[in-house]
Amino acid sequence: MDWNGYLDREQARFVDELIDFVRIPSVSAKPENIPDVRRAADWVAARLTRAGAEHAEVLPTAGHPVVCADWLHAGADKPTILIYGHFDVQPAEPLELWRTPPFAPEVRDGCLWGRGASDDKGGMLIPILAVEAMLAATGRLPVNVRFFFEGQEEIGSPDLPPFVAAQRERLKADMIFSADGLQWSPEQPQIVEGLKGLVSLELVVNGPRGDQHSGMQGGGIANPAMALAQLLASMKSADGKITVAGFYDDVVDLTVEDRAAIARIPYDEADYLAESGAHATFGEPGYSTRERLWARPTLDVNGLTSGWQGAGTKTVLPAEARAKITCRLVANQSPERIFDLIAAHVAAHLPQGVTARVERLPGRADPFLVPAGHNASAAAAQVLAEVYGRAPYRTRVGGSIPVMTTLLGELGVHAVMFGFSHGDENLHAPDEFFRLDAFRLGQSAYCRLLERLGAA
Amino acid sequence: MDWNGYLDREQARFVDELIDFVRIPSVSAKPENIPDVRRAADWVAARLTRAGAEHAEVLPTAGHPVVCADWLHAGADKPTILIYGHFDVQPAEPLELWRTPPFAPEVRDGCLWGRGASDDKGGMLIPILAVEAMLAATGRLPVNVRFFFEGQEEIGSPDLPPFVAAQRERLKADMIFSADGLQWSPEQPQIVEGLKGLVSLELVVNGPRGDQHSGMQGGGIANPAMALAQLLASMKSADGKITVAGFYDDVVDLTVEDRAAIARIPYDEADYLAESGAHATFGEPGYSTRERLWARPTLDVNGLTSGWQGAGTKTVLPAEARAKITCRLVANQSPERIFDLIAAHVAAHLPQGVTARVERLPGRADPFLVPAGHNASAAAAQVLAEVYGRAPYRTRVGGSIPVMTTLLGELGVHAVMFGFSHGDENLHAPDEFFRLDAFRLGQSAYCRLLERLGAA
Repeated sequence: MDWNGYLDREQARFVDELIDFVRIPSVSAKPENIPDVRRAADWVAARLTRAGAEHAEVLPTAGHPVVCADWLHAGADKPTILIYGHFDVQPAEPLELWRTPPFAPEVRDGCLWGRGASDDKGGMLIPILAVEAMLAATGRLPVNVRFFFEGQEEIGSPDLPPFVAAQRERLKADMIFSADGLQWSPEQPQIVEGLKGLVSLELVVNGPRGDQHSGMQGGGIANPAMALAQLLASMKSADGKITVAGFYDDVVDLTVEDRAAIARIPYDEADYLAESGAHATFGEPGYSTRERLWARPTLDVNGLTSGWQGAGTKTVLPAEARAKITCRLVANQSPERIFDLIAAHVAAHLPQGVTARVERLPGRADPFLVPAGHNASAAAAQVLAEVYGRAPYRTRVGGSIPVMTTLLGELGVHAVMFGFSHGDENLHAPDEFFRLDAFRLGQSAYCRLLERLGAA
Repeated sequence: MDWNGYLDREQARFVDELIDFVRIPSVSAKPENIPDVRRAADWVAARLTRAGAEHAEVLPTAGHPVVCADWLHAGADKPTILIYGHFDVQPAEPLELWRTPPFAPEVRDGCLWGRGASDDKGGMLIPILAVEAMLAATGRLPVNVRFFFEGQEEIGSPDLPPFVAAQRERLKADMIFSADGLQWSPEQPQIVEGLKGLVSLELVVNGPRGDQHSGMQGGGIANPAMALAQLLASMKSADGKITVAGFYDDVVDLTVEDRAAIARIPYDEADYLAESGAHATFGEPGYSTRERLWARPTLDVNGLTSGWQGAGTKTVLPAEARAKITCRLVANQSPERIFDLIAAHVAAHLPQGVTARVERLPGRADPFLVPAGHNASAAAAQVLAEVYGRAPYRTRVGGSIPVMTTLLGELGVHAVMFGFSHGDENLHAPDEFFRLDAFRLGQSAYCRLLERLGAA
C-alpha cells in the first residue's frame, strides 16, 4: 500500500487522535493550565514515536516545554528539513459563547469543533501523520526530517530564543516548514510570504490609593479610567492613523509593484466583513483594507479593566485603570523601539492628576518577509499547485509567529508556511473549528513535499 | 435611670448587636445577596420591636424590602418625625485589600471595622437605640416617631418612589431626619444642606460579532475598546471641563455669598489629598476644589470592561467595550435631561466602524438643597452645638441619597441629615470602619433631638 492508501485507511483513527489531542486544555496563557501544556507535550512525543520518528523528547525551557524528534536516515546527500508547529492554544473564554464546550471536541458538518482544532493542533498533527504514512508504506523518508513543536506560541514564545540558541545542533536544517499556517480558501492555496511582528504591553494608570466614593471625591481628583481613555484616544486620530510620534518611521513603504500584486488577488469587502461581523471596514487612511491588513502596522487595544464591572452600579472613582495593547509591526519596525515610542508618548501626554506606566508583556516578534525566489518556497508552491490544481496566491498575513524570526536569526533559514487552516475558523475566538478535508489534503501535501524535496 | 445612664450601661451590648448586624452581607448590588438583604430587613424589624417600637414590618417592593415601624403615643399636639436609614451595603470587592474580612467585623482602635459599619448600619442603629433608651427610662417618647429603613440605597433606591407614593399615610410626618449622614470631624459637627443628584448609565460600544484575532483583523476594522476610549475622552476637556453639549445649562451658579461661605470653612489640601491618596487635586477650571466637590456637577467613569483582562497577553480585537458612568448633579439639573444629553453626545461623536448605545442603570436622584432657615434643620443645629460644644458648619456633600428627593416630592418635607459617620471611614472602599465614640454620641444626640422637638 502506498502512503495515499495508508492515509485513506487510517483517516478515521487520525480524527479520533486529533479529538484526544484537542481535549487537552493546553492554554499557555493561564498558570492553572501549566500541567495541561505539559500533558500535551507528552502526548506529542508519544505520537511522534508511534509514527516512527526517533529521539522524541520533551525538552524543558524556562516556561512551557518543547518537543523534538527526528528521522535522519535519508542519507547525507539528501536535505534536512525542520517542521515546526505548536501544541499550546489560546484561552477559550468567554465560555458561554461556545456552541459545544471548547475542550469537548465534536465532529459536525465535516469539521472538528474545539479550541486548538485549527490553531494549531490539527495543523501540527498533519506532518506527523504524513511521516507515519511514508514510513509505513516504504520504511523510509525521502529526506531527513526534524520536528520542532513548542508550547508557548500563543503567548509569544518568550522562552524560545534561548532554547533555539542552545539547541542549534538539534534543529539544524536546510529548510524550515511551518505547519502553523493558513490556506487562502478550501479551493485556493497560498504561499504566505510575510508575517507581522508584535509588541505587547500594558498601560496602567493610577490615581487614589483605593477605589473612592464618586460622591465624596468626584470633581476633586482625577479619574484614572477617564485618564486612560484620554491616553488611548491620544494614540490614534479619528480617521485611524496612529499618532504616536515616530511610529511609522521605520516602515518600509509598499512599492507600486507590491500594491499592484496585492490588488490582483480577489477581494470582496462583504465577504471580508462577514468573517468578523463588523459592519464596516476602518483603518489608516490612504491604504486599501488588504494593504492595511497585510502590510501596515497596527495598534489595537486587546482589553480594558477598571473599577466596578459587575451588575448594576457601583458609584466608585476607581484607583486604577489598565489597557492591554498589542502592535502588529511590519518590516523594518523593531518591537523594542515601538515600545519605547509608546512609553515616551504616554509620558508626553500624561493627563493631570494621575500617574501612568507602560509595562512589556510576553509576546514579541520581529516582522518577517520570505525573500522572493526562495527555494523551499518554490517547492511548496509547486506542491500546492498539484494538490489544489491551482497556483497559489502569494500573500502576507497580519499575524505573528515569533519563533519564525528566532529560527531565522539563529539558524539562518527562512521558514515557509505550509499549513492547512483557514482564516474563517475562529482561530482565537469561540467556536474554533478545523476542516477535516483540509486535514486529509494536508497529509497528502506533506508527503508530496517530502518526495519533491528528496527528488531534487 | 435616665436615658443617658441606660445608654452607658447597655453600650457593650449595643456594639455586639452592631457586630451581628454588620455580619450580614446585605449587598444590594449583587443578585446572590438578595436573601442577605432580606435577612438584614428581618434583623432590623426584630430589633425595632425589641427597642419598643410598634408595628415593625418588613414591607415588599419590586426589589429589596423596606422596614417600617412607629411609636405614635406622644399625643396629637406633638410633632411626628420620620427617621430614615438603610440596611443595605456596598459590594466589598476587592476583598484582598481588606485587613480583616468585610463581613467578619472586628473592634480595633476604638472603631468597628467591616462593610456597612459606617454606611449605614452603625448610623441607622443609633436612633433605634436612642428610642429604646428613652422608652426604657420613661416609658414614652417626647414626639411621635416613625421609622423608615430601606434596603436599596446603594443601588440608587430604584423601587422607592412607587413605595413611598403608595405608603404616604404610613410615612406621613412633620419632619424627616436621615440617620445616613456625616459629621465634619469627630470634634466638629455640621449641618449638610445639599446633596448632589445622580444619573447612572452604561456606554456600550460594539464592533465585530465576537472577539477577533488581532493579527487577522487588526487594521481592517475598528476596535471597540479604542472607540470607547475616544468617546469617553470626547466628554471632558484636558483641563477637566465636561464637554457634553448643554451639560451645565441648568446649573444654578454659586453666588458670591455661597462662595464666601464655602471659603470660610477650613480647608487643607494636603489633608484632603490624604483621604484618597491622590497626589494632586484636579477638576473643572474656575472653581476651588471644595466648590467642585460640593456644588459643581461631575462625570465619572466607574468602571471599564473589554476583551482580555486575565494574566499576560491575548491578542484579540474585542467585540465589545463597556464603561459605567455616573454623573453627580446639582440644582437644577435633571437626571433624565443629562442622560439624554449624553446619549446625544455619543450619537454625535460616534467613531467610525462601531455602534454604540447608552443604557440607564439603576441609580437616580434629583439634586437636593435644604432651604435656608428650615425649622428641623435649626433644631438639629442646636442639638449638635450642645453635644459637640461647637456650632455646626453649614456644608454640602457630593453624594446622593435619592430617597431624600423622593420623600420631598411625595411628602412635601425636606429631610435633615442627622448622622454620625465621617468621610474618612472608607465608606465605599476596603477597610470601612465606624468610630464607636461617634456611635455613642449619636445616641445622646438623637435623645436630645427628640426632647427638643417635643418641648417646642
